[in-house]
Amino acid sequence: MTTLETHVDDTTFSKYESEVRTYCRNWPALFDTASGSWITDVDGKQYLDFFAGAGALNYGHNDPTLKDALIDYVVRDGITHGLDMSTRAKGEFLQTFQDRILAPRKLDYKVQFPGPTGTNAVESALKLARKVTGRESIISFTNAFHGMTLGSLSVTGNANKRAGAGVPLVHSTPMPFDNYFDGTVEDFGWFERVLDDQGSGLNRPAAVIVETVQGEGGVNVARAEWLRALAELCYDREILLIVDDVQMGCGRTGEFFSFEFAGITPDIVTLSKSIGGYGLPLALTLMKPELDVWSPGEHNGTFRGNNPAFVTATAALNKFWADDLLTRDVARKGAIIAEAFDEICTRHPGMSHRGRGMVAGLVFEEASLAAEACAIAYESGLLAETSGPNDEVIKLLPPLTIDEDDLIHGLSILREAVAVVNPAPKAVTA
Amino acid sequence: MTTLETHVDDTTFSKYESEVRTYCRNWPALFDTASGSWITDVDGKQYLDFFAGAGALNYGHNDPTLKDALIDYVVRDGITHGLDMSTRAKGEFLQTFQDRILAPRKLDYKVQFPGPTGTNAVESALKLARKVTGRESIISFTNAFHGMTLGSLSVTGNANKRAGAGVPLVHSTPMPFDNYFDGTVEDFGWFERVLDDQGSGLNRPAAVIVETVQGEGGVNVARAEWLRALAELCYDREILLIVDDVQMGCGRTGEFFSFEFAGITPDIVTLSKSIGGYGLPLALTLMKPELDVWSPGEHNGTFRGNNPAFVTATAALNKFWADDLLTRDVARKGAIIAEAFDEICTRHPGMSHRGRGMVAGLVFEEASLAAEACAIAYESGLLAETSGPNDEVIKLLPPLTIDEDDLIHGLSILREAVAVVNPAPKAVTA
Amino acid sequence: MTTLETHVDDTTFSKYESEVRTYCRNWPALFDTASGSWITDVDGKQYLDFFAGAGALNYGHNDPTLKDALIDYVVRDGITHGLDMSTRAKGEFLQTFQDRILAPRKLDYKVQFPGPTGTNAVESALKLARKVTGRESIISFTNAFHGMTLGSLSVTGNANKRAGAGVPLVHSTPMPFDNYFDGTVEDFGWFERVLDDQGSGLNRPAAVIVETVQGEGGVNVARAEWLRALAELCYDREILLIVDDVQMGCGRTGEFFSFEFAGITPDIVTLSKSIGGYGLPLALTLMKPELDVWSPGEHNGTFRGNNPAFVTATAALNKFWADDLLTRDVARKGAIIAEAFDEICTRHPGMSHRGRGMVAGLVFEEASLAAEACAIAYESGLLAETSGPNDEVIKLLPPLTIDEDDLIHGLSILREAVAVVNPAPKAVTA
Amino acid sequence: MTTLETHVDDTTFSKYESEVRTYCRNWPALFDTASGSWITDVDGKQYLDFFAGAGALNYGHNDPTLKDALIDYVVRDGITHGLDMSTRAKGEFLQTFQDRILAPRKLDYKVQFPGPTGTNAVESALKLARKVTGRESIISFTNAFHGMTLGSLSVTGNANKRAGAGVPLVHSTPMPFDNYFDGTVEDFGWFERVLDDQGSGLNRPAAVIVETVQGEGGVNVARAEWLRALAELCYDREILLIVDDVQMGCGRTGEFFSFEFAGITPDIVTLSKSIGGYGLPLALTLMKPELDVWSPGEHNGTFRGNNPAFVTATAALNKFWADDLLTRDVARKGAIIAEAFDEICTRHPGMSHRGRGMVAGLVFEEASLAAEACAIAYESGLLAETSGPNDEVIKLLPPLTIDEDDLIHGLSILREAVAVVNPAPKAVTA
Repeated sequence: MTTLETHVDDTTFSKYESEVRTYCRNWPALFDTASGSWITDVDGKQYLDFFAGAGALNYGHNDPTLKDALIDYVVRDGITHGLDMSTRAKGEFLQTFQDRILAPRKLDYKVQFPGPTGTNAVESALKLARKVTGRESIISFTNAFHGMTLGSLSVTGNANKRAGAGVPLVHSTPMPFDNYFDGTVEDFGWFERVLDDQGSGLNRPAAVIVETVQGEGGVNVARAEWLRALAELCYDREILLIVDDVQMGCGRTGEFFSFEFAGITPDIVTLSKSIGGYGLPLALTLMKPELDVWSPGEHNGTFRGNNPAFVTATAALNKFWADDLLTRDVARKGAIIAEAFDEICTRHPGMSHRGRGMVAGLVFEEASLAAEACAIAYESGLLAETSGPNDEVIKLLPPLTIDEDDLIHGLSILREAVAVVNPAPKAVTA
Repeated sequence: MTTLETHVDDTTFSKYESEVRTYCRNWPALFDTASGSWITDVDGKQYLDFFAGAGALNYGHNDPTLKDALIDYVVRDGITHGLDMSTRAKGEFLQTFQDRILAPRKLDYKVQFPGPTGTNAVESALKLARKVTGRESIISFTNAFHGMTLGSLSVTGNANKRAGAGVPLVHSTPMPFDNYFDGTVEDFGWFERVLDDQGSGLNRPAAVIVETVQGEGGVNVARAEWLRALAELCYDREILLIVDDVQMGCGRTGEFFSFEFAGITPDIVTLSKSIGGYGLPLALTLMKPELDVWSPGEHNGTFRGNNPAFVTATAALNKFWADDLLTRDVARKGAIIAEAFDEICTRHPGMSHRGRGMVAGLVFEEASLAAEACAIAYESGLLAETSGPNDEVIKLLPPLTIDEDDLIHGLSILREAVAVVNPAPKAVTA
Repeated sequence: MTTLETHVDDTTFSKYESEVRTYCRNWPALFDTASGSWITDVDGKQYLDFFAGAGALNYGHNDPTLKDALIDYVVRDGITHGLDMSTRAKGEFLQTFQDRILAPRKLDYKVQFPGPTGTNAVESALKLARKVTGRESIISFTNAFHGMTLGSLSVTGNANKRAGAGVPLVHSTPMPFDNYFDGTVEDFGWFERVLDDQGSGLNRPAAVIVETVQGEGGVNVARAEWLRALAELCYDREILLIVDDVQMGCGRTGEFFSFEFAGITPDIVTLSKSIGGYGLPLALTLMKPELDVWSPGEHNGTFRGNNPAFVTATAALNKFWADDLLTRDVARKGAIIAEAFDEICTRHPGMSHRGRGMVAGLVFEEASLAAEACAIAYESGLLAETSGPNDEVIKLLPPLTIDEDDLIHGLSILREAVAVVNPAPKAVTA
Repeated sequence: MTTLETHVDDTTFSKYESEVRTYCRNWPALFDTASGSWITDVDGKQYLDFFAGAGALNYGHNDPTLKDALIDYVVRDGITHGLDMSTRAKGEFLQTFQDRILAPRKLDYKVQFPGPTGTNAVESALKLARKVTGRESIISFTNAFHGMTLGSLSVTGNANKRAGAGVPLVHSTPMPFDNYFDGTVEDFGWFERVLDDQGSGLNRPAAVIVETVQGEGGVNVARAEWLRALAELCYDREILLIVDDVQMGCGRTGEFFSFEFAGITPDIVTLSKSIGGYGLPLALTLMKPELDVWSPGEHNGTFRGNNPAFVTATAALNKFWADDLLTRDVARKGAIIAEAFDEICTRHPGMSHRGRGMVAGLVFEEASLAAEACAIAYESGLLAETSGPNDEVIKLLPPLTIDEDDLIHGLSILREAVAVVNPAPKAVTA
């Protein structure tokens, strides 16, 4: 075997990689290593990561406990690829997930491992809901994001992403997410009415799929009472409720599941991103036992048994979910972010913010300023991305485990960036 | 942090995991470690693996070179999760893939990293073909398998898997795969006729998607001349040709790409399974540069930058594709399998075999015998699965790197299993 | 030739006709002849017709002028069946329609003759809108009715009728019709918002299809300002506006087109039912000249040139639309109906009414009473049907040409029928 | 009432009528009256009609017996428009259809009156088949024509007509019609194979819809044994068989139903075109009683009770189907056509012919000659149209009642037209 002298630079990607690439366009550094809340590029420059793998790194980069577990597993030749064979690593994950997560919350769910990405979990959830109910139609919400494969894309809101399908996206109807009309319209007025009106023309839905906080959609936060009303509406009309917790689960909002605060129990839950703990691909579809009508192999996928991810996932559950420290941490750090954003919004015109736990959105009335502020922050060593239908929101998803000092440091970079793009009006008099 | 005492046994999976699980039903052992062609269960029993992660482990389990590269990377805190940011690991993979694979074969492809599973690659290929052509319809082949998400499922043949969709699967039309009529019917008679007949009722297709050997479909092998005729037919009518090389790529048939032997150049190629080398999730969509019309982020996915998989993928390319040793090995071992199968088929009634390189199918006229033989082989420590529309084929996908002795040992287990379920007729006289 | 002695009685229909038959179940008489507002059964019993062929007989049964024109045409061997050949009858209709209807209203429309039924006209309108815009999706309204063929059914609201499709009905999204929330919600709040929000998930529509008064949907009346706002909304966003005037056109609401009162000019208009004048099948699709992008024969139909219907249609235009007498008549008789309904609603609890021109709905809070009242009215010699999602509305569509005495007579039958099923509360004291 | 002085000429149509018009482009005369096999234009020029309303005028134009019945009915104020109320005219038709057609053929069908056009009948047939089976997919045949509304269009072959849909046409798969491969391929090899192969990817069909002779498709004639094999194949696999007899029924091929000669009994039959007898719109859907699972009103249409058409339909059944004279006539005249075509094909190069009963196709290898010959024939006073995917076939559909002399006269016009466009090669010696 000969190893090539591999020279990598900026042009490597523009020459060889598809035009579909996107984050690297805003953050052109060539990254190399990462630890905790920091990423380092090949030149040794460090970046504070307020993006955290779009929510896949709730526990930060390369957490040492998880890292040790992973190395141990690789060193001792733990089986890497296992499809859905029974493996020790998978069994330990299942048992730990039961003991650390489901049992304490009195949740009774069967666990499916679809292909190891969020969109695979969503696709399996939609298929299952359709199989159980014998109906085709799914209700999604304005500004939802559920994934890029054809089934998931049909329930995703973004027009550009939808256009990429190349076929008409059907079997789904959008409904207004919480607060879509700024409180001026009754929450489920339209939805209930068309469900109950035999002449409405709405195909009776198999399921409703909802994010409790829409990350990609612009950090739109559903209230507990809205979620409860939605759950009740679904229950009353025998429509399944799917919570897509791919981005907001695993503690992002404080509790493990983002729906716990509302006291609801969805019929089906999807998890991915941070469930593997270490940034390794893994996804889960949880379903109430009576909904587990799959026949063996009816939905499968080669990498559904990604055993290194089971190992880090188990380690993460043991490290972070044996007590409520992380949940309390998220509340405290979330408050720090909210306070900083409050101050920014008070000082600068045309701004507002929203969020829950450690997902926070800083909203610019003039949409283009969000990207400009992020670009300036990047120059100052902070990674933060925009979201929302017009990219008008700076979306913060810092590691839940971030040091308070780092958090405050990052917020100050952001504050300065905002000050550049959207200066506070000069006071006429003091 | 407290670590639970996690007890795992058979009941862990039946209690907690969905009924969708399947391989673990045929192979009820609780697996723990693996190395090369062997898997070991928690009781220390060893199993020879002729299944190799359904083609995801062409280089065997936990290849030591790749393992070292992976451990090095994890130890030195190489970035694990990178979305589509530029990372050293990704750049090195791109350059190595260019140098080891594309350039020597004079192939000019841009590389897209969709979500890290085969079905993600197929979905992106279908979307791209539709975007490029402005047409919706896709031609697939009888007994094709392309994945379980809605777009991929629509071009997959298996009726049970299709039924799982819960919505009608549309925008696709099946055509007969090579030799579907045992040579009695002209290869593309039907396909060409309906394409060229303005009154045929066939929606004009955006693309044809084909496997050169259909693994899940029962090890159906397309001939070089059939593939060439297909490529020509597509070219003449401005239909894109997608080769789904998820299972048959990365050397399974000898050469890196399974279509090389036919001298064709598909417009789009999907790779996954063994491209990561170590069983870690990774997928690639290759497209001719002029087809790279994606807008940034139009198709994305959280785990599309699975950097540990880039590291093992690069190591695998360097180890196995710097010369033609592996290709020659595959030819030699493929011949051993074919010879053994020839002998079995001669000795036992109602059997035939087919294959190319190191994918081989042993076909039983009486379909149920295939599963019975695999069950007996499992008892003797061999993992082999069935495929085909009626599960009538024992499908062998041993690691390409298997020792010849192990290969011969496994084949003898199989031979004995066949002898039990389908005894050779007694000779009347010697 | 032998003519059979054909005996017809009640059992003829139950024995030979499909279970799909419906009106004959409520009105079991065996009808024979008809004239003006009256139908006579085989036993000579006369029925006053407040139903008028579901709006197909705006000029009553067998109007003598039209009858003479029809007999003349048949007697002189005028061509009966003409596909879309140029015939004198068709030319005279086209010119008369231009002179009597389009030119005086300064409407510039090209005329298409699709198959001679309303649903054919709607199908052609939807196809044309899709062809012009290159989009698939259509916006329809709650409780819309547009027809029973697959394209029309997809924009129809009634759940039972939709279920008959046997395939999922897609490419359409319902929006709330005027006053769907009893004035509590801004008219187009939801529609405008999802159109303008790039993240809403609504597929961008080719067209909006609307009835100005929803007959089948329960006599729901759109206000002029609502229609104007809809037209403006469509214009601003380059969405085509289709007014389905199949039931409400030809003077039902007073003016020839039901949208005239609102001062809007739809892009496409469908006409059928009363356009033939005599109850003979005919349908028109009107389109702005710049939308006439059909290629020859792209939409056709064997009976699109029903020449006897052209003859009666022309005669009807000449008789009824040479001046504004009919329009004024409709206003006057409409007021009589409204007054009678006002009185009924004042006297009886749980009732309301609505309507425009000579379409009127009498609404029962207790839905089943509507059918009961109609059954009683039938016994007294009045034909009136129910509509609305729960059949809670008695829908009146008397001939526009009805004698005032007959109108008042029919209303009194109805008043008495209501009194039986929904007695006025006894006054405690006078 | 004022009657306009209506001036009609060529420009009336080009000014006011949509570009979708088609027949009038080839036959620019302004037609006025018609009788038997002859049409007369406003200038008194007579045209022999070998087109007969695309099969809607099997009994010629304005048959005097039917004309008398129609005039009587109109004069005596027979009810014109009846929806699905029971009327004497409808009852007499039902009984006569039973007595003259169904009973003598021992056919047990319930009769549905959908909207009065062929495409309405086809739509209802497809809906019913889907409701009965719970499946969505329909098998159609290459070069089929079933109508222009969305459901019917999805099973129609012509690419230009399909493109007009503006949405992808799905839920249908074309199979090769009889003789599609000129006898070189087994009839149902492909169809049976994909039906029976669980891995074929074909969605299991609800029904097969077939024409016994494809008129629009180019006069493609199915053999009796092919139809029998198709019926058996459907029966064995519990797929419903729909014969679309809209164009080929009512005696066109000799017997009343075009499938009688094959000895099959379809599950569902559609009739329209000539069923009304006089060119008035009417359509029937016949279904085996056990398939009559419609709920009342589940499929409806305003003109489903076109009573004048019931009257002429009844008169036609009594006049033409009380004995077998017409059937024998059709055989004799069909033989005259075939003989004439034989002679033409012998004399002129690159020609062939096909047909059954009195539908006949004269096929040109050089497609454009067909239209050229028709244009010349038109100048000589003969109406004949082209069909086939490339308009390469002159399709003859003369009235079944045509005089032999007229038939021979028309054929001689055609023979001369062919001689002009495709001259016979000069003999080298006499």
